[in-house]
Amino acid sequence: MPASPIRKLAPLANAAKQRGIKVYHLNIGQPDLPTPPAALDAIRGIDRSILEYSPSQGYLSYRKKLVEYYAKYNIEVTADDIIITSGGSEAVLFAFLSCLNPGDEIIVPEPAYANYMAFAISAGAVIRTVTTTIDEGFSLPKVEKFEELINARTRAILICNPNNPTGYLYTRREMNQIRDLVKKYDLYLFSDEVYREFIYTGSPYISACHLEGIENNVVLIDSVSKRYSECGIRIGALITKNKDVREAVMKFCQARLSPPLIGQIAAEASLDAGEDYARDVYDEYVERRKCLIDGLNRIPGVYSPIPMGAFYTVAKLPVDDAEDFCAWCLSDFNYEGETVMMAPAAGFYTTPGLGRNEVRLAYVLNKRDLVRALYILSKALEEYRGSRSARL
Amino acid sequence: MPASPIRKLAPLANAAKQRGIKVYHLNIGQPDLPTPPAALDAIRGIDRSILEYSPSQGYLSYRKKLVEYYAKYNIEVTADDIIITSGGSEAVLFAFLSCLNPGDEIIVPEPAYANYMAFAISAGAVIRTVTTTIDEGFSLPKVEKFEELINARTRAILICNPNNPTGYLYTRREMNQIRDLVKKYDLYLFSDEVYREFIYTGSPYISACHLEGIENNVVLIDSVSKRYSECGIRIGALITKNKDVREAVMKFCQARLSPPLIGQIAAEASLDAGEDYARDVYDEYVERRKCLIDGLNRIPGVYSPIPMGAFYTVAKLPVDDAEDFCAWCLSDFNYEGETVMMAPAAGFYTTPGLGRNEVRLAYVLNKRDLVRALYILSKALEEYRGSRSARL
Repeated sequence: MPASPIRKLAPLANAAKQRGIKVYHLNIGQPDLPTPPAALDAIRGIDRSILEYSPSQGYLSYRKKLVEYYAKYNIEVTADDIIITSGGSEAVLFAFLSCLNPGDEIIVPEPAYANYMAFAISAGAVIRTVTTTIDEGFSLPKVEKFEELINARTRAILICNPNNPTGYLYTRREMNQIRDLVKKYDLYLFSDEVYREFIYTGSPYISACHLEGIENNVVLIDSVSKRYSECGIRIGALITKNKDVREAVMKFCQARLSPPLIGQIAAEASLDAGEDYARDVYDEYVERRKCLIDGLNRIPGVYSPIPMGAFYTVAKLPVDDAEDFCAWCLSDFNYEGETVMMAPAAGFYTTPGLGRNEVRLAYVLNKRDLVRALYILSKALEEYRGSRSARL
Repeated sequence: MPASPIRKLAPLANAAKQRGIKVYHLNIGQPDLPTPPAALDAIRGIDRSILEYSPSQGYLSYRKKLVEYYAKYNIEVTADDIIITSGGSEAVLFAFLSCLNPGDEIIVPEPAYANYMAFAISAGAVIRTVTTTIDEGFSLPKVEKFEELINARTRAILICNPNNPTGYLYTRREMNQIRDLVKKYDLYLFSDEVYREFIYTGSPYISACHLEGIENNVVLIDSVSKRYSECGIRIGALITKNKDVREAVMKFCQARLSPPLIGQIAAEASLDAGEDYARDVYDEYVERRKCLIDGLNRIPGVYSPIPMGAFYTVAKLPVDDAEDFCAWCLSDFNYEGETVMMAPAAGFYTTPGLGRNEVRLAYVLNKRDLVRALYILSKALEEYRGSRSARL
């Protein structure tokens, strides 16, 4: 497995901090907003003398409450359709292991969440990518681009919607296009929808579960990590109407015995967090998004499309090699003792050479820090370009 | 993946309970003893507003405390050598994924923990078994039996010590035999030692980490599940001096982001549980073991070796087909409204036909219940054998 570019930067960030430099982390997807107090209260109020295994499928009480949660998004599932996993990560891994044989191929729009690749390698599966571009706002390419990749080993399409890393939200037209492909070639559709709470335009959220006629092909990947700022409890879910897939997934679930007990208690309590919690979190991200995107597009030579969801954007920088620039920000630059850390976008593409002048930025900093980080970024770009042109 | 025999019994047990029959669970490895109060207090006292990701390798503070814990067993490791996992299960899976290529073979003494097979399938690896027998008290066969299986694809030996399902503790002679094989053929030695607290004879505990000259071949699998009665928190560890293996494992760890946060808090606090906790738990298992083994060997036709560790034994029953008998206990039998559930041992062997008249019994019931369960088992055997001979 290749080391991702962002992991190569981590030692540079640590070294910068050791030199006393403050680093604004625009690179990570760890929300800084509070976990719902109801979840923390449930943990503090735990009334057990033994922390025993929970059922391999997850607690029935939690799965029943999730049924109501999904119903609010017009996703009609039963508690039996839901399998609780150790984070969305385990859901992706088990979906791959259960639905794919070694050598089978999955089509994924790139740029894509880099860890999908690691799970594909674990399952012996092969990721093939259709390219989306910043200049087209990361919208899906024409159906022909997918069909060019489809062969006898193609078994699935994987999407992340709203998208990490681009923040793109698939339109109804695009979702219908995917549905038609899935139906025509009898593929699985793995749909990672962990950011559904974070959609900022009037555009509707079209879940893979809303698509008619492919109910048995859809495997929904979910997680409470981002929704409730509780990445640490490792609670996700794999949801499918396909009984054969569920039975295969359950064998892996039984082998790993059970999902985390205390995490399930926290996740179940989080469902009672209420509208206020969700609205406060939402409003905060709306403002940060505006702050970040406006700020980026004001920096000369920088361009970011307006992301419709999640809390990321992929922006183009006026540099030849964003990986070099990101490393330089950590190793050679500071402005008044501060610098920024960003994720070079090349790590989200599998096609060599793509995304070289792009970075992914997350808006999980408060607005004051975001404004400051943007200012430092503009100073860094000035100095970096000056030093590069002086050298030429 | 084949469904294990024990999973086939679960619906029968549920049906029996629905008929109002009390089922004594001799089949499961979920300890009934309390979790250390220090662990529960740590959870109740959690002082955080965000349940964020922990490091992919696990908290450094926890790993540092584990170094002291292992030192008590003369296992000399550093915090860098330790990777915290989601239960021992994830440690086994990541060990296989990191050390083995598809088609590679692992030699495992059978009977063996059935889930190793599931993880091997996940990694595309092949389990080959050397047979141990109840008549030889499950001691290891001669080295020639291992060598018969070794070929160009053999990459590892996997042991569980003290053993699940047999309770067997490997002797120094046996461990040296394994060490010599590992060295001679340059194999990995995966050693699952999650029951090291539960050793009931004067025999010494020989960890794989005590074996000289194969430090870079050993991958230790560990878990707090059994040690502290906290199966639900999903905290295990993978420990190795082999830097290349650690780097490969860390890639899988980074893909799944982090081990459970709250579980680590509980596990770290458990290390402060103190000698009293450990001694109380130990004394209780010693008494239960005596109660179970004496009781079993008093039932006509039943034979159990004396297990030296863990909290299981594999016993021979006077029946032709223990799977049929175990199912019959749940579906056709009760004594004063009560019955027993046991794990047919055939599920722990990969060689067809082995263990057909054997069952695995766990002693995680209190002594009163154990005595009652043994009495019911004797009644069940009487009635079952009567009905079978009447039919013949």
